[in-house]
Amino acid sequence: MSEQLNSVLDALSRDEKASTERLFQIIRIPSISTDPAYDEACQQAAEWCANTLKEIGFEASVRQTTGKPMVVGHSQSGNGKSGPHVLFYGHYDVQPADPLDQWDTPPFEPQLKDDPKYGTVISGRGASDDKGQFMTFIEACRAWHETTGSLPVSVSVLIEGEEESGSPSLAPFLEANRDELTTDFALVCDTGQWDADTPAITTMLRGLCSSEVVITGPSRDLHSGMYGGAAHNPIRVLTNILGDLHDEDGAVQIPGFYDDVHVVSTEQRAQWDTLSFDEKQFLGQVGLQTAAGEKAHSALEQIWSRPTAEINGIVGGYTGPGTKTVIPSKASAKLTFRLVPDQDPDKIVAGFKEFILSRLPDDCSAEFLRGQGSPAVGFDISGPAFQAAAGALEDEWGKQPVFMGCGGSIPIVESFKSELGMESLLVGFALDDNQIHSPNEKYNLTSYRKGARSWARILENLSKM
Amino acid sequence: MSEQLNSVLDALSRDEKASTERLFQIIRIPSISTDPAYDEACQQAAEWCANTLKEIGFEASVRQTTGKPMVVGHSQSGNGKSGPHVLFYGHYDVQPADPLDQWDTPPFEPQLKDDPKYGTVISGRGASDDKGQFMTFIEACRAWHETTGSLPVSVSVLIEGEEESGSPSLAPFLEANRDELTTDFALVCDTGQWDADTPAITTMLRGLCSSEVVITGPSRDLHSGMYGGAAHNPIRVLTNILGDLHDEDGAVQIPGFYDDVHVVSTEQRAQWDTLSFDEKQFLGQVGLQTAAGEKAHSALEQIWSRPTAEINGIVGGYTGPGTKTVIPSKASAKLTFRLVPDQDPDKIVAGFKEFILSRLPDDCSAEFLRGQGSPAVGFDISGPAFQAAAGALEDEWGKQPVFMGCGGSIPIVESFKSELGMESLLVGFALDDNQIHSPNEKYNLTSYRKGARSWARILENLSKM
Repeated sequence: MSEQLNSVLDALSRDEKASTERLFQIIRIPSISTDPAYDEACQQAAEWCANTLKEIGFEASVRQTTGKPMVVGHSQSGNGKSGPHVLFYGHYDVQPADPLDQWDTPPFEPQLKDDPKYGTVISGRGASDDKGQFMTFIEACRAWHETTGSLPVSVSVLIEGEEESGSPSLAPFLEANRDELTTDFALVCDTGQWDADTPAITTMLRGLCSSEVVITGPSRDLHSGMYGGAAHNPIRVLTNILGDLHDEDGAVQIPGFYDDVHVVSTEQRAQWDTLSFDEKQFLGQVGLQTAAGEKAHSALEQIWSRPTAEINGIVGGYTGPGTKTVIPSKASAKLTFRLVPDQDPDKIVAGFKEFILSRLPDDCSAEFLRGQGSPAVGFDISGPAFQAAAGALEDEWGKQPVFMGCGGSIPIVESFKSELGMESLLVGFALDDNQIHSPNEKYNLTSYRKGARSWARILENLSKM
Repeated sequence: MSEQLNSVLDALSRDEKASTERLFQIIRIPSISTDPAYDEACQQAAEWCANTLKEIGFEASVRQTTGKPMVVGHSQSGNGKSGPHVLFYGHYDVQPADPLDQWDTPPFEPQLKDDPKYGTVISGRGASDDKGQFMTFIEACRAWHETTGSLPVSVSVLIEGEEESGSPSLAPFLEANRDELTTDFALVCDTGQWDADTPAITTMLRGLCSSEVVITGPSRDLHSGMYGGAAHNPIRVLTNILGDLHDEDGAVQIPGFYDDVHVVSTEQRAQWDTLSFDEKQFLGQVGLQTAAGEKAHSALEQIWSRPTAEINGIVGGYTGPGTKTVIPSKASAKLTFRLVPDQDPDKIVAGFKEFILSRLPDDCSAEFLRGQGSPAVGFDISGPAFQAAAGALEDEWGKQPVFMGCGGSIPIVESFKSELGMESLLVGFALDDNQIHSPNEKYNLTSYRKGARSWARILENLSKM
């Protein structure tokens, strides 16, 4: 280890208390991007990020878009060496916090708590996804800047505010700022560790596309005493159609859904088998026992290498207290589809529309909202940046990192590849049970501390590439 | 026509403006019984009813129950004759007004409006169901009282406040006040005319029972990136099960659902055929074309003589703006079942539970809420009270009333029969397109005026029985 790195790691140790308070500051801003009620909070979060970058030597600014603002910053390498120029990506926006009544403490009042499994954890919406995660990188940069006056490699930073709502402004922003944002490769901190003691580099991400269907039956809400039996009920139509979305073996029945899906290679399966993934424990921690996906595939394959059709929300008719004998005029459902490499989001959404329309009674109509999406991506892990990161992670954690798949989608990674021709290095410190997108989201204090130390080491290793 | 009746009808004509304002007063009180937020409004509505009864010579009071208060009043016949003693029933509670944005004018700000089809109508929640309806009777009593100092027969009045929320307090209240409330028969004003020019007496009412099912899958909301594919999604489970509720011919697939259903007699069908029911127009006015019920039965049979299973509400997952990639922990649906004579509500609810539980994956659980209900009822129409009412209606409207079925449920009618041994005479002045339980509920001003005149005549005819 270099003397410089040693000093940087010491600085991180000394600064732990203030570092946690800085994370708390950004968690306190309720930057929910999908709900327009929080537009001002998103603007505040962007400004907080830009100011933080300026504090630690970046030239940084908030850039307005037609959606939520972007934050961009640049810091020249200080050591005169010709290491790579990297672009770090994170997102300051978070998922909605509902259902609020299931939070033990308020979602936007971060706290340190004792966790029976992990020791001290940071609680709050965004504690893990992605505020805790991107702050590990920012804190590593702060320690390098404060210790040495600069960073070991040239670093640009892009922090967006629409990751949780489909990133509509991202492609035009990358297009308009192509030269400024194109670097040798990207660093992304939005993924997980293998377990609390084992770091990981993620090498495959599922894609994502979405659709919302609104079924209309009668032209107005009806009284079920007067019309019940004779009038088409759009909830009945919707449940009848969506009830057919999966067959008895868990396969999705949308036409052409599996056309472009590759079977996982024998080698890949063998590698995954060595991970001895504990399916019982994975499902058991959320109160389940058996995998609900395609019966021919293991749970790990179901989440890493198989596409899904998921109903994320459904609503229709009277949902307040008590009963109401109504036949509603409309019923709707929100769906997302997780995609694997080579599936085309447009084709999947078109197939879903066909699936609905071909089953719709003559008297009913269907309207479709949204439909954008991003395909899945996979990386070649033999390059020097992957090796540099793997070495740094092993130094910090005392274990080789696992090269793993990921069931989630990070559209930016696909955009970096397709728009800017850049590969991404995905290193993150989240855990499966961080309850991201759920009540009581949390992030291990160890993930936060050792995450920052890991990035400090990775930055040094990258400078030696 | 007696001279007295003539004077009473004249008094009704003179008092029309004040009579409408009295109806507006009670409509302005938002007495939504199913939502505890309106408890105080229900109390206010009850007091308004009691005070109104006192004004017109009744001994009246508000009686507290464990639910919404009841209003009871008594007025002795003034003519010394031994006519029947009748109990009039109405309800001051109303359905929730949502969706509010579909109302042209605020639901609790009643107004007179020009209607292209019917001329002047009264708009507002409860304008028809049941405030406008029960006020026709009260206004008839007012005119009798003000003209003659008393009523032609002894009248008791029971106005409840839980008709729209299952009437949980009704059975214990009838039980506890059996002697006070038992009269020769009941008068109920909560049903419809055949059309705007043709009065009707309703002789058959469908029963009603309800159930709400809550499906739980994972123990908490999950991120569909992390768990999508492997975790049971309760929305998928719910839609899959409820999608199976009806077969392709529209028949309900709950075990034993049709066991006790009688086929409509040839005579009954023949009588209904003479009504030349306009199915196209009935469905067309709500934007539909084809009847959605059992294919072997006409639309009129579907609503008058066949049972139904209707999903009145469904909710699960994220239903706000935008998308949320969540697999929710729970999803739920509210159902009601319309019953025909001899179907047992308990048996139907038990069948529904079996229907759900037999299809439930091992990993999921189902909880059932509610489940009370009331069976259907039918009346013998040859009795003298029916004939007295039919004559009065013919005098007022210049046409014989239609003896018709009704798809709706009025649990009180069943309770009067089973608890107090009383038959009911169901005369009402609503129309199919009054939009009861829907936005823009309305009541023809003609229904209100001629309804009051009809009751004034019925009261006289009853005194001659």
